[in-house]
Amino acid sequence: MAGSDVSEREERILSIIETARAKPARFKDDRITMAHGAGGKATQTLIEGLFVPAFASPELSALGDAGAVEVDGAELALTTDSFVVKPLRFPGGSIGELAVNGTVNDLAVSGARPLALTLSLVLEEGLPSETLRAEVEAIGAAAAAAGVHVVAGDTKVVERGHADGMYVCTTGLGRRDPRARLSPSGLRPGDRILVSGTIGEHGTAIMLARGELGLEADIVSDTRSLWPTVDAVLDAAGPDLRAMRDATRGGVASVLNELARASRVAMVVREADVPVSPEVAGAAELLGIDPLYVANEGRLVAFVAPEAAGAALHALQAVPGGEAAAEIGEVRTEPPGMVLVETAFGGRRVMDQLVGDPLPRIC
Amino acid sequence: MAGSDVSEREERILSIIETARAKPARFKDDRITMAHGAGGKATQTLIEGLFVPAFASPELSALGDAGAVEVDGAELALTTDSFVVKPLRFPGGSIGELAVNGTVNDLAVSGARPLALTLSLVLEEGLPSETLRAEVEAIGAAAAAAGVHVVAGDTKVVERGHADGMYVCTTGLGRRDPRARLSPSGLRPGDRILVSGTIGEHGTAIMLARGELGLEADIVSDTRSLWPTVDAVLDAAGPDLRAMRDATRGGVASVLNELARASRVAMVVREADVPVSPEVAGAAELLGIDPLYVANEGRLVAFVAPEAAGAALHALQAVPGGEAAAEIGEVRTEPPGMVLVETAFGGRRVMDQLVGDPLPRIC
Repeated sequence: MAGSDVSEREERILSIIETARAKPARFKDDRITMAHGAGGKATQTLIEGLFVPAFASPELSALGDAGAVEVDGAELALTTDSFVVKPLRFPGGSIGELAVNGTVNDLAVSGARPLALTLSLVLEEGLPSETLRAEVEAIGAAAAAAGVHVVAGDTKVVERGHADGMYVCTTGLGRRDPRARLSPSGLRPGDRILVSGTIGEHGTAIMLARGELGLEADIVSDTRSLWPTVDAVLDAAGPDLRAMRDATRGGVASVLNELARASRVAMVVREADVPVSPEVAGAAELLGIDPLYVANEGRLVAFVAPEAAGAALHALQAVPGGEAAAEIGEVRTEPPGMVLVETAFGGRRVMDQLVGDPLPRIC
Repeated sequence: MAGSDVSEREERILSIIETARAKPARFKDDRITMAHGAGGKATQTLIEGLFVPAFASPELSALGDAGAVEVDGAELALTTDSFVVKPLRFPGGSIGELAVNGTVNDLAVSGARPLALTLSLVLEEGLPSETLRAEVEAIGAAAAAAGVHVVAGDTKVVERGHADGMYVCTTGLGRRDPRARLSPSGLRPGDRILVSGTIGEHGTAIMLARGELGLEADIVSDTRSLWPTVDAVLDAAGPDLRAMRDATRGGVASVLNELARASRVAMVVREADVPVSPEVAGAAELLGIDPLYVANEGRLVAFVAPEAAGAALHALQAVPGGEAAAEIGEVRTEPPGMVLVETAFGGRRVMDQLVGDPLPRIC
């Protein structure tokens, strides 16, 4: 971003934010709040301020979606997620399907082909067996669709009133794909920012399924395995694909902020180019939430060198369900660590990290 | 067991039990109960009657403590566990330490050297940060002691009143040790049954820590990494080590029943030879529970060919904390799938699978 198109006042504001964000995150809260699980600023503080120092683990410090492990020459990736979504079933999916796809997708966007899953269940005493059976079948079907085996499992039961029916923890093992040369800190000015389809469907579907809004709209979750998408874009862009993230908790905005910070670059997003369905746009308007902050469970953000951006976009659009894939912005130099949005009306605003949790328990 | 030392009545009873147990387990319960998480008969029904058929996974069907996966020639093992222990801290350990050791131990007894862990937390809104910090530090210390890195993590937060402070899910990746030739179905008549130390300490320590019994005794959990124990016994017995299990939920009795069933053999345990501390024996007496059914978190049961049993026992006793390791019985031919206990007074009884959950939430 050239200095000349930023007003003096905006420069001062950006400078203050930049200084604050350059500091290492410190975990100073007295108690855990819902925001610590929302994937935004509080989550980052917890990870960088507590977990990373305590575990002194180079794999964890890399802060990728999956940890890299090498065993006897095999280049592996490991990732884990707990799922606490409410309700357990929603239009387009359920907690079991989400647990498989969410973990498979963390491997995929790390450039690792998903191979195996483990499954750990915390069940609530009194859970109808049919509810459990339905989720076990959903897990089996999603694992088969994603080409992974469930190789180990565990079940615990807690008393009535806990665990909201069930919590599901899935861990995924993948093999690094030799085509992938990805790094969250490898973005360069000029790189293009692509999304793999319309955004915000999962989070919106969950909010509507809770029925708290008294709103009806035909929105289904986007939950799906992203490996076919990753496979296609790796083929098209190879080493020109700099980084990928699936845009789950905190949405596309959180992904952009994380990577802008990790790569010490700026990003500009052209709001008009962000693919949002009219239904999601309408629901988000009523909820007072920007779709860029809404969770997706089958959408990724890809950062691609300019010379490969066209081919990568074409590849994304050719994947079933990816017809609406789009280039939504690009990486700039200044101000480092910041994400700016150019609105349809020619204005510009900072798209900061999520503070608080506007959409709790969406995954 | 020779037929001549079993009375006709006993023969008839054993025959009825044997017929019932030879049937494949079917999951027919209407609702989930605490027993489904207790590691006994109900848990087995859930695994064999629901999970194994739904996932159609050969790794899972093997029903080991860890699933075997081969990637690019590397022989790997994966295992997962959720921890829901109450209270979070207890004499000798805490949920975080337990989560590391429990998962490391499932790898170790599968003959896999633990390499890496993932950590997934479900936290309750309002949890004091100091409680979380203490567990994160316990996890870091236990991981360092066990020689594993935490390579990936996830945190979710649920509303107050759920998750009892925190639930912890750990998944472990290990490398198969070339010395190990283990199989839960590989036991042969004549094999000796060894335990790696005194039993029942963990479960008893948890029950006392809840303060519900109004009983005070100096019992601390046995939670520890079993890799040094496994390493020692692999060195001593090599291919003569047939199988190992850590005796967690359901205790030594559940391990024996599982393997007697998997190998279609009988087992006889000499009650007088089972190492139990006087404190645990006293508390178990008051609780009305047999220490053989009480959970351990740092004890294993090893099945060893007779010619290597002496060397294996010597190796177990030489590991710090294993001084009380003992040979407690042996594998027999008849009646297949059954575990019998010879009491100190010369009597004999069937030591069946656990039904119900006498000690809920102990891990």
